[in-house]
Amino acid sequence: MCQLLAMTSKNPADIRFSLTGFRRRGGLTDDHIDGFGIAYFQPTGLRLYYDDQSAIDSPIAEMVSAMTIKANHTLVHIRKSDDSLLKNAHPFVRELWGEPWVFMHNGKMTIADMPDNDPIKQQASQHSTRYYQPIGDTDSEYAFCYLLNQLKDNFTQKPDHDTLNAFLTTQCRFLSTYGIFNCLLCNGDWLLAYANTLLFYVTRQAPFAQATLIDADVTMDFAQTNHDDDVITILATTPLTSDEHWQQLAVNECLIFQNGQIIHQDLPKPAIHLSIKTGLEIAKSA
Amino acid sequence: MCQLLAMTSKNPADIRFSLTGFRRRGGLTDDHIDGFGIAYFQPTGLRLYYDDQSAIDSPIAEMVSAMTIKANHTLVHIRKSDDSLLKNAHPFVRELWGEPWVFMHNGKMTIADMPDNDPIKQQASQHSTRYYQPIGDTDSEYAFCYLLNQLKDNFTQKPDHDTLNAFLTTQCRFLSTYGIFNCLLCNGDWLLAYANTLLFYVTRQAPFAQATLIDADVTMDFAQTNHDDDVITILATTPLTSDEHWQQLAVNECLIFQNGQIIHQDLPKPAIHLSIKTGLEIAKSA
Repeated sequence: MCQLLAMTSKNPADIRFSLTGFRRRGGLTDDHIDGFGIAYFQPTGLRLYYDDQSAIDSPIAEMVSAMTIKANHTLVHIRKSDDSLLKNAHPFVRELWGEPWVFMHNGKMTIADMPDNDPIKQQASQHSTRYYQPIGDTDSEYAFCYLLNQLKDNFTQKPDHDTLNAFLTTQCRFLSTYGIFNCLLCNGDWLLAYANTLLFYVTRQAPFAQATLIDADVTMDFAQTNHDDDVITILATTPLTSDEHWQQLAVNECLIFQNGQIIHQDLPKPAIHLSIKTGLEIAKSA
Repeated sequence: MCQLLAMTSKNPADIRFSLTGFRRRGGLTDDHIDGFGIAYFQPTGLRLYYDDQSAIDSPIAEMVSAMTIKANHTLVHIRKSDDSLLKNAHPFVRELWGEPWVFMHNGKMTIADMPDNDPIKQQASQHSTRYYQPIGDTDSEYAFCYLLNQLKDNFTQKPDHDTLNAFLTTQCRFLSTYGIFNCLLCNGDWLLAYANTLLFYVTRQAPFAQATLIDADVTMDFAQTNHDDDVITILATTPLTSDEHWQQLAVNECLIFQNGQIIHQDLPKPAIHLSIKTGLEIAKSA
């Protein structure tokens, strides 16, 4: 499976501290070596680079590690799969309502094994009149196209935040029934994080402390690099630092961030259990 | 205006000789400094990189200049405009029929000045139910979205080569009525070149000779770098070498290349002139 990293911040910020540790999981501290991709939502537009090489070997990963690129949302993916084809490299991007939507996935789904009339598998039909079709052959891209086609089918223009958030949560819950589905989705305005099994986040804001990477012997004092009004949230498949409190998302929890902060949280409804009423409750209901 | 460069070849080939000269037009020998972009159609997928910096200063341009990347089709763009916004960087890419379609434009169109009900300007309507909408604000991307929407409206699946070639030629002719419209369009299978005013090409095949760049003091002997069965065509806004025969496309000519060779050529019909019949013709028609 792959690993995900993202940063959402109030003011454009540099992801390189997190990237230093995360990149090492692409060949040094872990074996996610089948591709690397990074998407920056900068104030002037989307900057998206990907490679079929591992994060450790990729010249693109090396280049961005040497550059100061400040963005409000940054998404990074290291891939572990049966192939390292360029067409299957994350993040995936499609235009929706005049915006670039960027998607990346961690998990294992079973769309390829589904019958041809499966609603997600149908995205790739050669006779499809759908808006979006996969270019590669990953379950991840099938899921992304399904999500976008559902949006385009249901809304002729971008709906309000609450409607969109609820719709996206419902669709992610549906997709998670196809297997393991942890994803990050961003349109430059907000960042959606959906955890089916494994996703953590930490928010950094004043008073800033320092943190030490797990995958590299690097410590950073955020008080030296941030302004008092900065708010930065980092999301990752597993924590990147050893001395911060990383919050794990609940199973099938959906969080949406804007300016580094949570603007939408949707926890799944608890399963319904038969309960034995207490004497008091029986008395009340009688 | 911008400048265009492309390579189409029978076997995957390295564009760096041409790129060495072309890149210098992005800040040294010419002033196309408002962005750089490059798209490689490799056997395993599309590799697309772009930057808001000039080709001379861009770390991306520097990186690809140091890498051996072999591709069947490569497209390069250096931009000259009133802005250097990332969202307006060429090449543009959209998925159509499960393929990545890459487009770049040289010229100056007048779409922004058109009324809102203009068929091309309508692509960007917020209430649009169209398949494709522009993300940036260039006439180039408007034109690309118009072209793709026309394709999606007229064909539910990819038509045969002849039908597609004729349709694309007609659409390019229509777009050229909006101003100066020189473009390159590629889906990885073929490369379309449309010249409204300015576009040249040269085909290199056995017996291979040598060539010297115009913009840099570099000579290459293609006999040393190519196999006998290689066929490579280079297209550029203006010739890149001083000692080869570059063929200029005619006004409103459309060429489509596959494996380095022309598979479709469409010259505009000559204008109709009233003619005075000769005595012989009058005799024949009588």
